[in-house]
Amino acid sequence: MNIAKFVHLSLGKWRSQRSAHHLAFAHYEQVTSNIEIVPLEEDDPEVIEICKSYDIDPSKIVSPFRMSWEGESDWDEEEVSEGTTVLVPVPDTKHPNKGRLLRDRGYAETVSAIGDYEITKDGTFVLITRYDRASAEERIWFATGNLRFRVSTIKTSDGAGVTTASFSSEIRSIGKAKQENS
Amino acid sequence: MNIAKFVHLSLGKWRSQRSAHHLAFAHYEQVTSNIEIVPLEEDDPEVIEICKSYDIDPSKIVSPFRMSWEGESDWDEEEVSEGTTVLVPVPDTKHPNKGRLLRDRGYAETVSAIGDYEITKDGTFVLITRYDRASAEERIWFATGNLRFRVSTIKTSDGAGVTTASFSSEIRSIGKAKQENS
Repeated sequence: MNIAKFVHLSLGKWRSQRSAHHLAFAHYEQVTSNIEIVPLEEDDPEVIEICKSYDIDPSKIVSPFRMSWEGESDWDEEEVSEGTTVLVPVPDTKHPNKGRLLRDRGYAETVSAIGDYEITKDGTFVLITRYDRASAEERIWFATGNLRFRVSTIKTSDGAGVTTASFSSEIRSIGKAKQENS
Repeated sequence: MNIAKFVHLSLGKWRSQRSAHHLAFAHYEQVTSNIEIVPLEEDDPEVIEICKSYDIDPSKIVSPFRMSWEGESDWDEEEVSEGTTVLVPVPDTKHPNKGRLLRDRGYAETVSAIGDYEITKDGTFVLITRYDRASAEERIWFATGNLRFRVSTIKTSDGAGVTTASFSSEIRSIGKAKQENS
């Protein structure tokens, strides 16, 4: 599994069930959302802009995509959270299953972020993004062609404490499983 | 990481937050429970009995342990589920990071079960247990020495459909992190 294939399998519309565990308080939060992942051209102006902002040669990128979501939390049913972000993988030239992931805006943050990814032998995409005072880890894998799982954790920057962990089940809501996943 | 070390890191008392996603109905269930994992001697009568029932040479086993739990679901707060099971790892002689896991009773089932495990390069314990009409997969890994994550899925036996997925955050409630995990 390489990043181009992983992105290809991820394209489409997904219905997500997410449970967050706020560990210090043993609190649960549930978010139901819709996610859409669409491919972008490598010369899309937004993609080029992101490459420039990180000083990355656009010829080194593969499979840029846009991810959009709108969700509803059981904490505040009045508030619908929604957003969109452009993500640009930059594979490592020496280790094709590793690389960097550029994005114009984090899932929760409003700042730019760059993460390091690796796709493990069993097909799990692992992304680590370091911020000033914390780091975020995401693990994403396919159970079937139509079902993705995602575990996200936020750690304090010294690595000692995990403050929040969340689990998402993402079911393809439109389109068939990609044949490549059989 | 081998199974003896994985079991050693798992010993102790844990407070578990579990969220289950019933995928067909987009339903959420939350279970808070206490788990205790204690080591058993390799010649413990219960361990020997399990080896006999599966026709396994007791000299081939390592690190047998007992896991007990009591939990409360938000589906039925009156009902406290509790149980205990003995688990007996039987490493593969050729592949030390793989093997079988014998148990006297499944987590949810009241029948004996034998599963196939593998510990991946990044330290994730993956257990697959096949039943007549379904199979269960568990993925367990440590975020820190005091925090384990567990993702459990139930698939129909043809592998096509996942009916339930659950995510547990297990925080050590007594004792310190094992130094081996540093």
